[in-house]
Amino acid sequence: MTTASMGLIGVGTMGSALALNIAENGHDIALYNLDPSTIDALIENAGELAPRLTKTESVEELVKAMPSPRAIILLVPAGAPVEASINALIPLLESGDTIIDGGNSDFRETQERTKRVEAAGINYLGVGVSGGAEGARHGPSMMVGGSPSAWEPIRPVLEAISAKHNGEPCVAHFGPDGAGHFVKTVHNGIEYADMQLIAEIYGLLRDGEGRKPSEIAPMFARWNEGILKSYLTEISAKVLEAVDPDTGQPVVDVIVDKAGQKGTGRWTVIEAIRMGQSASIIEAAVGARVMSSERETRAVAAGILGDGPNNSVTFDEDDLEAAFLAARILSYAQGFRILKAASDEFEWDLDYAKIAEVWREGCIIRSALLDDIATAFRGNLPDGRLILSDHFAPLLLSKMDQLRKVVSQAVLAGLPVAALSSAISWFDEVRQSRGTADMIQGQRDFFGAHSFLRLDKEGSHHGPWHADRG
Amino acid sequence: MTTASMGLIGVGTMGSALALNIAENGHDIALYNLDPSTIDALIENAGELAPRLTKTESVEELVKAMPSPRAIILLVPAGAPVEASINALIPLLESGDTIIDGGNSDFRETQERTKRVEAAGINYLGVGVSGGAEGARHGPSMMVGGSPSAWEPIRPVLEAISAKHNGEPCVAHFGPDGAGHFVKTVHNGIEYADMQLIAEIYGLLRDGEGRKPSEIAPMFARWNEGILKSYLTEISAKVLEAVDPDTGQPVVDVIVDKAGQKGTGRWTVIEAIRMGQSASIIEAAVGARVMSSERETRAVAAGILGDGPNNSVTFDEDDLEAAFLAARILSYAQGFRILKAASDEFEWDLDYAKIAEVWREGCIIRSALLDDIATAFRGNLPDGRLILSDHFAPLLLSKMDQLRKVVSQAVLAGLPVAALSSAISWFDEVRQSRGTADMIQGQRDFFGAHSFLRLDKEGSHHGPWHADRG
Repeated sequence: MTTASMGLIGVGTMGSALALNIAENGHDIALYNLDPSTIDALIENAGELAPRLTKTESVEELVKAMPSPRAIILLVPAGAPVEASINALIPLLESGDTIIDGGNSDFRETQERTKRVEAAGINYLGVGVSGGAEGARHGPSMMVGGSPSAWEPIRPVLEAISAKHNGEPCVAHFGPDGAGHFVKTVHNGIEYADMQLIAEIYGLLRDGEGRKPSEIAPMFARWNEGILKSYLTEISAKVLEAVDPDTGQPVVDVIVDKAGQKGTGRWTVIEAIRMGQSASIIEAAVGARVMSSERETRAVAAGILGDGPNNSVTFDEDDLEAAFLAARILSYAQGFRILKAASDEFEWDLDYAKIAEVWREGCIIRSALLDDIATAFRGNLPDGRLILSDHFAPLLLSKMDQLRKVVSQAVLAGLPVAALSSAISWFDEVRQSRGTADMIQGQRDFFGAHSFLRLDKEGSHHGPWHADRG
Repeated sequence: MTTASMGLIGVGTMGSALALNIAENGHDIALYNLDPSTIDALIENAGELAPRLTKTESVEELVKAMPSPRAIILLVPAGAPVEASINALIPLLESGDTIIDGGNSDFRETQERTKRVEAAGINYLGVGVSGGAEGARHGPSMMVGGSPSAWEPIRPVLEAISAKHNGEPCVAHFGPDGAGHFVKTVHNGIEYADMQLIAEIYGLLRDGEGRKPSEIAPMFARWNEGILKSYLTEISAKVLEAVDPDTGQPVVDVIVDKAGQKGTGRWTVIEAIRMGQSASIIEAAVGARVMSSERETRAVAAGILGDGPNNSVTFDEDDLEAAFLAARILSYAQGFRILKAASDEFEWDLDYAKIAEVWREGCIIRSALLDDIATAFRGNLPDGRLILSDHFAPLLLSKMDQLRKVVSQAVLAGLPVAALSSAISWFDEVRQSRGTADMIQGQRDFFGAHSFLRLDKEGSHHGPWHADRG
């Protein structure tokens, strides 16, 4: 099999890093960017890799600069830019060429594009790429969707440039068309949840105890030596330690508290709800970013409703560690449940263990936990539920009381813990053998004659309030 | 202006009730149903109203039975049945006739249908109808979307059949095309939240204190005499009091704890998230119904993770009352915020005070609070936020500590309180003048070079971890 020649449209932060990674792995790569100066800068600073990088000034020139079969990676913003690139490429490409969308596209658009591009005789892959600029440069985690016949010729290149976990490439083909982008979407949903959990714990110590960032950083650094070891734990310590060179202040103290978001966190929640799944921990993270963006409202509200107590609570760092661990496990579990719902609906037959393995290195949520998650998915999993596995059920149970204690302290003190408390609610709902929906069904039958099922007989029934209906 | 002649497609529980209501208000009404036997039953039991009801055997016959201008109400399930009815009607109707979709249609479909039906020269109204069968019979609350020219000829009939609050009809035209169905969707979202809050409080007493339903009913009955007075509070007492005639057991104890849901709760959350709004309390209610439906999973999980403590906590009924009130106010506030986001996006110019007024009678969430909400929206509202009004800010503040106490007790005891705790998280996020998104922005810049805003200078900045970027 001939290895495809490589091309790249979109030479921004991620694109530049990925181009160098590809070049370093022995491939020439043709580059096109709307603003050609970023390519000049890239080549200028590429050192010995520069000869492998070819600047082109148009999509036509890009395609001409590549021997067939071609593989052209798009690293442009999701939506219209992806669409425009595809439309420009289709008339120029020939059978055997492949378009690879490496951005954060909505998996539904990827489903539609795969059909359309393949109908034009061109291969199409939707690839979720995680790891930020650093990952793109030295090895990202990649989640591939598309036809196996499109994947196989590209596989050697993506395996070469991917992150490695004990030598195993952190890239895999998960299913057809949108499967890769959906897995990446849920990856980002879990990332949102994990970041929010960290932000809440930081807030507890900052606002509850009045600690300075430098007095919080060592805790995250210590956690990163244990079961909570993960990229996000690690960089939280680094972010908190960092000092602003201009002012001598901790960097976090000069950052405006408005969090940006792209589509993926929201998409995870929307798709979960649409499929009848709960995504409450991820929703808490999305909701918190929403409120963060309404900074002016928060200032007005604080003036009227007060702003919560300061320096009035003491948290035990071991409790916080247990709380983070339990909530992290629960948010992963929600994420994997959402993946299962999509896999069932779209008949993707996703390999959950493989997904956990691909996430072990290179991506933003890489963490020590993922090894255990992969093991759990390869083993006996009651009801397919991560939290019921031999490994995670006792681990969770051993930490839940501390999560409860932390949330209780925070709730009483007026410190926001949307994600931490959603994790508890979800846990308590999942394990409630006799729930409280009997009341809801009673109400629904009362006001809407919706009828209900009975525990003691078959069929639909009405309450005595509808005696005429029996 | 000639009053339109009335017709109805879909003679189920709601349709039958609405037909009698229309007849009672002095209008003849032609009826069509896929299963004609429901019409026979309706007419048989209609007593002196029977002469006003005309059974027809096809859509053609229905239209022929009505003098023009005609107004044909659809009370069929959302989706394909609405679509089929419209397609059957369009070729039969003439200019000046009106199709009224009175079901729970997705407002986006109503937007599209309004365009399509009006292009065919027929008027179209999307009307949210709330109140269940009882409301439909004696006066529902109705939320109208469509062209003012379509609304005006229908207005007298809908005002006559609607619920009345101190003589004022609980029906209003809120905006073009999908506005009415969107307001109804959010109404249902709030309804989901309110029902979940009640179910959680019921669960606290059932599982925390081991109370029997008959020992919980009087509390809801008492609450219904005060500030929590509402239809849902009232019927909760009745549902809990009801005894199953077959077994002599409390009815709730024989009802299977799996709650059904139609689309509207989910739609509220999905649209909120899409528009960048938090719908966390409503999401908690949707998520709880989701988990309720996974009854087999819950049984397995309870076996492995345990099932929460029983009879181990004592709740103060006054605390519970305060908790319900605070959480109810917060969930209404979230609902109105979602309405505002949609009003801004679609340029509907929704009248929030009027919406509260239309909800005061006839609909499922009718409650004493809505008068105060209408007053708040007509008065000075800081930042347009209900919870910051002169009335609600001090009321909330006087109840929050008790909500915190209840949630803290529940969280420590392992009793699920997803909606109650989401209400607290949202409150604490809204009033947090200095949030914790500085940490999230720090992380995003660290791993993705996303940059952040600074408190002390203009422009986008990077942290010292990207010293090369400045």
